[in-house]
Amino acid sequence: MIDDKLNLAEIEGGITAPGSFLAAGINAGVKSGSIKKDIAVIYSPNETTTAGVFTLNKVAAAPVQWSRARVAQGKARAIVVNSGNANACTGEEGLANAEKMAVWTADALGIAKEEVLVCSTGVIGVQLPMDIMEKGIATACTIISPQGGHDAAEAIMTTDTYAKEVAIEMFIDGKRIVIGGMAKGSGMIHPNMATMLGFITTNVKIAPVLLQEALFNAADQSFNMITVDGDTSTNDTLLALADGSSGLAIVEEGHNYDEFRKALNYVCTRLAKMLAADGEGASHFLEVQVINASSKNYAKLAAKSVAASSLVKAAFFGQDANWGRIICAVGYSGADFDPQLVDIDLQSKAGSEPVMRSGAGLTFDEERAATILAEKEVKVLIDLHNGHYDATAWGCDLTYDYVKINGDYRT
Amino acid sequence: MIDDKLNLAEIEGGITAPGSFLAAGINAGVKSGSIKKDIAVIYSPNETTTAGVFTLNKVAAAPVQWSRARVAQGKARAIVVNSGNANACTGEEGLANAEKMAVWTADALGIAKEEVLVCSTGVIGVQLPMDIMEKGIATACTIISPQGGHDAAEAIMTTDTYAKEVAIEMFIDGKRIVIGGMAKGSGMIHPNMATMLGFITTNVKIAPVLLQEALFNAADQSFNMITVDGDTSTNDTLLALADGSSGLAIVEEGHNYDEFRKALNYVCTRLAKMLAADGEGASHFLEVQVINASSKNYAKLAAKSVAASSLVKAAFFGQDANWGRIICAVGYSGADFDPQLVDIDLQSKAGSEPVMRSGAGLTFDEERAATILAEKEVKVLIDLHNGHYDATAWGCDLTYDYVKINGDYRT
Repeated sequence: MIDDKLNLAEIEGGITAPGSFLAAGINAGVKSGSIKKDIAVIYSPNETTTAGVFTLNKVAAAPVQWSRARVAQGKARAIVVNSGNANACTGEEGLANAEKMAVWTADALGIAKEEVLVCSTGVIGVQLPMDIMEKGIATACTIISPQGGHDAAEAIMTTDTYAKEVAIEMFIDGKRIVIGGMAKGSGMIHPNMATMLGFITTNVKIAPVLLQEALFNAADQSFNMITVDGDTSTNDTLLALADGSSGLAIVEEGHNYDEFRKALNYVCTRLAKMLAADGEGASHFLEVQVINASSKNYAKLAAKSVAASSLVKAAFFGQDANWGRIICAVGYSGADFDPQLVDIDLQSKAGSEPVMRSGAGLTFDEERAATILAEKEVKVLIDLHNGHYDATAWGCDLTYDYVKINGDYRT
Repeated sequence: MIDDKLNLAEIEGGITAPGSFLAAGINAGVKSGSIKKDIAVIYSPNETTTAGVFTLNKVAAAPVQWSRARVAQGKARAIVVNSGNANACTGEEGLANAEKMAVWTADALGIAKEEVLVCSTGVIGVQLPMDIMEKGIATACTIISPQGGHDAAEAIMTTDTYAKEVAIEMFIDGKRIVIGGMAKGSGMIHPNMATMLGFITTNVKIAPVLLQEALFNAADQSFNMITVDGDTSTNDTLLALADGSSGLAIVEEGHNYDEFRKALNYVCTRLAKMLAADGEGASHFLEVQVINASSKNYAKLAAKSVAASSLVKAAFFGQDANWGRIICAVGYSGADFDPQLVDIDLQSKAGSEPVMRSGAGLTFDEERAATILAEKEVKVLIDLHNGHYDATAWGCDLTYDYVKINGDYRT
């Protein structure tokens, strides 16, 4: 797939796509009896610029506390991740264990423990099986390779049904720029998502403050549009490492930085949409676009409110054109708008059906609406006719399987 | 049941318990083919003081717009309610229809249309069947009686599985004070509840500003603790009529007003808990008590966040002692607290099990926890050890049936 406007092309390889990064994903047995891969290591032989976005939850897991302090220094060389155990609410022992993960990774790779970022995802409140972690980390560090991206993407999964990875290449000043990324599932997406982990690698050289700003902005219009600000888990983390191996250096704002930002947004949005589509038990992928709002914030609030509404989500599961729940969710979103001006359309590749005009419901063709909603990917278009700001949020429907998965996750 | 501390006793009769109010509930056929009662009328032969609390949703249904304006005048004599159709997003025609409901009720009862409050609940965006409404309202007004409270409570139900009513009597200055109430279901309770309607009748005489204040405060610690402020439907309405027939007049703050407020809080809390227990598809009733918070607002935020968490709700459906999701929901609630100080206990009539102490998970007896969670009514006790403010929220679990009910409600 080529995006002409962005002048970039998707390529294979996930987080090892830049070529200069090594990775591995192995089964260590973090979750007793499971044969699923559960430890991932990403390593940069080169020095990097590092940026991160972390959970706003007051209860931050031990690895978040460790990694937040390391990112503040801005010079990581490796990331170690385990699934199967979140190392959250684990007290002093948990903090010590997060540090041990960094130490073992650093020792195996011959770097300093301060250069290792740590992420965990899984059950809360249980201490990590440290003998298994030690062996697993050592093994993973032994087999890291430029082809290990996909294994790493598999190793970070929890209830995800498939690995999420994407990579792009583009040319700036004649240099081949690559951005690779992988992410793991957001569980129910909203209102209180399971852990979201995201990892970005790139071969640009970039000033730390610029990378941090670009990553923060990319997260804001991608991962944050499948959840609600503040409603984050104890472990949510998005990390980016830039190693400069492309030869391109972005040291100030301007054209090159803009191109990089657009590409980073693209990668993060692709990953975020994959997370939404793979929401626990989801049978439909929902895109909610709000246009012509009177501010960017109102557009975002309205779009997220609709995508997050359990009643809307349940209606899409039932393939029910229940636009009343949609306008209701816009109404309590906190966005300012005039209810008398609102238009709503339901869309999919099967067609487009207007269901509300100027704030009043239309008598529409139920059969045509049902055909549209039977598609796997469905879009809600909401025109507030109140300004010129747009925003898009993504989500999934609410299904029996969601309840099943979350009714018995821990045991 | 007698509450000694409050010095009140529950009695029969719902909203007609004061004796001076008349009511009826009939099947008019608002929802084609349904034999369920769907029109309710409450009438006060005496003049009343009137108060109301309405949805904060930007999209307010036509009956809400009508009733809000009437309550501002403070002198209603009747309330007409229909279920089966919300008369929301119905434009000018909907506003005219809400007024017609008031006119027909006023004509039948011989009062002014401005003395009639109107409420609707049901599907959004469909015009009311006005021929059916006209006949139904006329019939209901003909058969209103002092015994009609229960029929009225049945007529306002939508997906509720039973009618919610409560009434109390108490003595103040030798006068027998009665407060009656009825309410209808909040659907999923949160995050975007279906319409909540509540109605209160009482035989005290009370200054309008005091009744409004008392009702607002009662709603804040009852109905608002089973939902989240702002996340209200297009139709949510709580109305109170006080007719003064007891001979007791409350004209200023002081002992008598305090006693009345406590009793009103009791009635509203009883109704709110019934709504939570009857959440769509619910198999467990959840009470979340947060104690020792550093402010009342933080206590409320934390309690509501836990009660509203879909992950917590799904865990209780699975009878899974997943306290990690509980502390996570406290963490993103917006409440300020120290994670290192938090204690959590799971309780029911089968016992009490500490699952977190000082912010770290305990190794607890899974079997005993399972026994506790198997009970229909389960309580989460969260001690923040951070101040001296408490709050309680109520909710229910998230079940397969919730998804089923909401996946196909409109059709």
